[in-house]
Amino acid sequence: MSQILERIDSPEDLRRLDLKDLKTLCAEVREYMVGCCATNPGHLGASLGAVELAVALQYIYNTPTDKVVWDVGHQAYAHKIITGRREAFKYKRLKGGISGFPKMAESVYDAFGVGHSSTSISAALGMATAASLNGTSEKVVAVIGDGAMTGGMAFEALNNAGAMKSDILVILNDNHISIDKGRGALHEYLLKLSTSRAYNKLKNRIWHDIDSNWFRRWVQKAVFSTKSFLSKGDSSLFESFGFRYFGPIDGNNLDEVVDTLHDLRRIGGPKLLHVITKKGKGYKPAEDDPEVWHAPGTFDPVTGNRIKSKTSAPAKYQDVFGHTLTELARANEKIVGVTPAMASGCGMNIMMHEFPQRTFDVGIAEQHAVTFSAGLAAAGHLPVCNIYSSFMQRAYDSVIHDIALQGLKVIMCLDRAGLVGEDGATHHGAFDLSAFRPIPGLAIASPLNELELRNLLYSATTPLYNTPIIIRYPRGNGEGVQWEGEEFSNLPFGKGQKLHDGKDVAVLSLGPIGNMAADAVAMAAGQGIDALHYDMRFLKPLDEDIMRDVCAKCTRIITVEDGVSKGGLYDAVLEWVAGCEKKISVKSFGLPDKFVEHGSIKELREECGLTCEKIFQTICK
Amino acid sequence: MSQILERIDSPEDLRRLDLKDLKTLCAEVREYMVGCCATNPGHLGASLGAVELAVALQYIYNTPTDKVVWDVGHQAYAHKIITGRREAFKYKRLKGGISGFPKMAESVYDAFGVGHSSTSISAALGMATAASLNGTSEKVVAVIGDGAMTGGMAFEALNNAGAMKSDILVILNDNHISIDKGRGALHEYLLKLSTSRAYNKLKNRIWHDIDSNWFRRWVQKAVFSTKSFLSKGDSSLFESFGFRYFGPIDGNNLDEVVDTLHDLRRIGGPKLLHVITKKGKGYKPAEDDPEVWHAPGTFDPVTGNRIKSKTSAPAKYQDVFGHTLTELARANEKIVGVTPAMASGCGMNIMMHEFPQRTFDVGIAEQHAVTFSAGLAAAGHLPVCNIYSSFMQRAYDSVIHDIALQGLKVIMCLDRAGLVGEDGATHHGAFDLSAFRPIPGLAIASPLNELELRNLLYSATTPLYNTPIIIRYPRGNGEGVQWEGEEFSNLPFGKGQKLHDGKDVAVLSLGPIGNMAADAVAMAAGQGIDALHYDMRFLKPLDEDIMRDVCAKCTRIITVEDGVSKGGLYDAVLEWVAGCEKKISVKSFGLPDKFVEHGSIKELREECGLTCEKIFQTICK
Repeated sequence: MSQILERIDSPEDLRRLDLKDLKTLCAEVREYMVGCCATNPGHLGASLGAVELAVALQYIYNTPTDKVVWDVGHQAYAHKIITGRREAFKYKRLKGGISGFPKMAESVYDAFGVGHSSTSISAALGMATAASLNGTSEKVVAVIGDGAMTGGMAFEALNNAGAMKSDILVILNDNHISIDKGRGALHEYLLKLSTSRAYNKLKNRIWHDIDSNWFRRWVQKAVFSTKSFLSKGDSSLFESFGFRYFGPIDGNNLDEVVDTLHDLRRIGGPKLLHVITKKGKGYKPAEDDPEVWHAPGTFDPVTGNRIKSKTSAPAKYQDVFGHTLTELARANEKIVGVTPAMASGCGMNIMMHEFPQRTFDVGIAEQHAVTFSAGLAAAGHLPVCNIYSSFMQRAYDSVIHDIALQGLKVIMCLDRAGLVGEDGATHHGAFDLSAFRPIPGLAIASPLNELELRNLLYSATTPLYNTPIIIRYPRGNGEGVQWEGEEFSNLPFGKGQKLHDGKDVAVLSLGPIGNMAADAVAMAAGQGIDALHYDMRFLKPLDEDIMRDVCAKCTRIITVEDGVSKGGLYDAVLEWVAGCEKKISVKSFGLPDKFVEHGSIKELREECGLTCEKIFQTICK
Repeated sequence: MSQILERIDSPEDLRRLDLKDLKTLCAEVREYMVGCCATNPGHLGASLGAVELAVALQYIYNTPTDKVVWDVGHQAYAHKIITGRREAFKYKRLKGGISGFPKMAESVYDAFGVGHSSTSISAALGMATAASLNGTSEKVVAVIGDGAMTGGMAFEALNNAGAMKSDILVILNDNHISIDKGRGALHEYLLKLSTSRAYNKLKNRIWHDIDSNWFRRWVQKAVFSTKSFLSKGDSSLFESFGFRYFGPIDGNNLDEVVDTLHDLRRIGGPKLLHVITKKGKGYKPAEDDPEVWHAPGTFDPVTGNRIKSKTSAPAKYQDVFGHTLTELARANEKIVGVTPAMASGCGMNIMMHEFPQRTFDVGIAEQHAVTFSAGLAAAGHLPVCNIYSSFMQRAYDSVIHDIALQGLKVIMCLDRAGLVGEDGATHHGAFDLSAFRPIPGLAIASPLNELELRNLLYSATTPLYNTPIIIRYPRGNGEGVQWEGEEFSNLPFGKGQKLHDGKDVAVLSLGPIGNMAADAVAMAAGQGIDALHYDMRFLKPLDEDIMRDVCAKCTRIITVEDGVSKGGLYDAVLEWVAGCEKKISVKSFGLPDKFVEHGSIKELREECGLTCEKIFQTICK
């Protein structure tokens, strides 16, 4: 089957191929990728679109001396497969296997580790600057999607790179879609560029008709860089930033990509190549429905039928969020929804469908999403802004400076809080509890289950909750608790609930991981040890009634949270206990002070010692 | 003197003036502003340039129903003076007085609170969206400087606003300078726009020659918004984002500003007005040296002579940083400096002067600054990236995702850590210790004094320190310790130092505030109570030898830090003590769980109970 691919153990092997074999290689890579992802799921769609790009980059550039920085990394599967990780790719995202994202520690061909978006131009500029300081001639390329291009950081980098006149190539991999459909002005602008190619075609044709290098350089300098050529010569957004704009070219046409990169490799200065690719390219089901096939789960590679998980599985927290928000929006017209390009991922697409005018997908732009929400709140609306926990790190200052400091009532839902599993270290929502607990005026809560998420959302929209609030909950299936259509009930602000009565030892848990703690408590009860178990529900304000009760009855406390212990619930409890007269020991279950890699959530919890068994043992000590 | 100004108690009063009086008002505002700032210093330069803008905005727009959002707020003094805070302005930035920045709680005319840059378009878009949802007709204006425009968040907002087709006016207040000289591509682009005004002049002339409203609307629609007018019609960066571009106009010409705003108020959709102003306008010394007069301190308003503080004052930490970095850079060619538009503020201008090729001012772009540094480190350089503590909140994810997770050795210096005084709540470096302590793989240190800063910087550049490190220190004068020309000495990684021997009670301090703690310890020693005082020097890793010693000898610990207690040194110590057999009480001195407003550092410390006297009393308890 994969006659060529199976001989490609490094880019060196690939560079020995002729163009015809290179094309066959692309087909083989695609087939291999589909086959692997059918059984071991991943981010298939974008990677299918970027096969020619990945192959051409290794073909033209002298990696690893030359550097290729992939933005986000969703699209870099072909890159992994052809840079010595063909067999390892079968085990991508599995515990002990390779990461789903480029990672410096994994391969010298991964010039920079990624996972979050919009970092590639900054990192590449750093490398290009280093080369310039060293007086060496290696080339640096950043490959960034049109979705990631809306992240403000990418513009910060363009602005700097254009002025520094660095030798850097930015490849804008434009598939007209981020995870959800793009909705920004940049999106429209790129679409316009792609459909009015006259100027660029002319430019490219002249370019290709010239085969003398010095003459090219002269044309380059005399014609393209001056305004005398065509008035459209500075029509490009990117040229405003000091970048020379090339393209758009068909990024799924290997000849065109190879030719263009071959030319561009010789041109100095900041330049941007606009490449149009098709998400899902070469695999019909993925081409037909790119949103679903962004990360399709397991599927039958022949039919394209996705293998649905058993229908008996509990609802996802994302569904609970989406449906509840929509119900609340029906009853309160001040409620608006804000998401930075994660409408379908977080469930806000449900509200978007029913209230398109009141639901805002602002693009990959977490900072803007938060401050835009603050503006809406300042004008009397009630924004519910949903951002994945690890992506909220991007908007840390916006939460402090624009929301908390001004006491603006914005409901911030942090999806993907805690361990996320296969997406690994960049995506675990590990730091939110610690990062936001020290911020004055913010409430922080986490529901025990689906019904509590529903009621927390409801309560947060009532005037009884009068501060900005963070509600964090994990990715995926809930606990199987009945929630749909349940009457809304108010959860008292800052109050937790007793789950099991006991004395001597207390278990204080926050969020759905409390259900695992409850199992441990039940096991201990089976052994005759009754632990006093509270679901704190709120990290901040900390429920002082609970703390008083616990400190009165117990000499040992066990805290359980799905986040780093440092700074989170553990520390909040330590602070309280520090004020007690008697000695109370506090033992923490949470994430450790190291980055947790990828694997199933179950495996990762084992690794972190965050298991029912361990909690049970600690209760019984 | 100020015959008109003294009658302006609100924008209502101002709107009754004719244009001639309005011009006089501008002159009076300027004179008043200079007079007030001469004795009570502040951000004078930018505010002098924006007088006509502030006056014209209140003249044309129906505030507070219409909303004016000032970005950063450095330039909003005239706005404060004419919106009911003329007398209060004398006491700006003083404890109990008005803030130096716009602040919602202070005035209905401050539509959104600011301090950090690049938030205004996002907030204004939120307000414009609210108006659109409400079906009301209030107008929203964001005023943003060319410096703040390079912050990525501003582009995130432009991208979103352009696509939403919101009725919003962005006024780009272009004084060709941020705090330091702008160096980005945007800066060059704006300069080009300002100097090639032909197209825009033509456009404006046609505009002004038409006085029928429907005809204007027609021209608007048929001509300016299509590409048929002139090929330059879409030449603007901002038009790529779906904004209609107007200008540039002379922002210090009141007639021009009033006329233009009058016209623009009637035009819907997203539009950007490019306004050229002169920093320091109307006050010659400030016009001549805008960098110095950004925030000049006290001065003689007649002569413009700045009143220098006594030459006997100790060196500033910023000078120690700048000179030491430069010395280190001389010895190690791998060292590079990175600053986001704060070269003179943080002292990196000293290195920039000697090593212009190795020092990078990347513009107001904290995220990019950090990830650019990561790229440099990945390519084998040793970046020293200096960012004010509260601005580093912007780059929280960059530190986690691009530096800590990859273990890239970047030395991050957080200037303005702890209380900063008169700049107030937005600028206190209160959260860095808490925010970064939970991040794996990061070292966090703070020097006791100038010499220690020097040696920490030196040590961090040696291979003995092999992780990314944060070195945080305060604004302003050091302790008067001899440092200049001192031989470099290595400070062992992760180790603190004993400052005073004692038992029973221990004082653990971090950073220069340890000197205040040392005074308290000395006072107690005078009373016969010897406290065991350690300067921790490192928050992370925590010096376990010290902790063992303290826990063996003492039953009481007092922690002293210049940051919020929650999550910082206090919690680090609590975590350690939680593992001890015996009961040890821990009392914290640090910043409280509320936002601290402006005032002198001494006053604010009093307010927070962070004083020598209080520490002394606690030692003696």
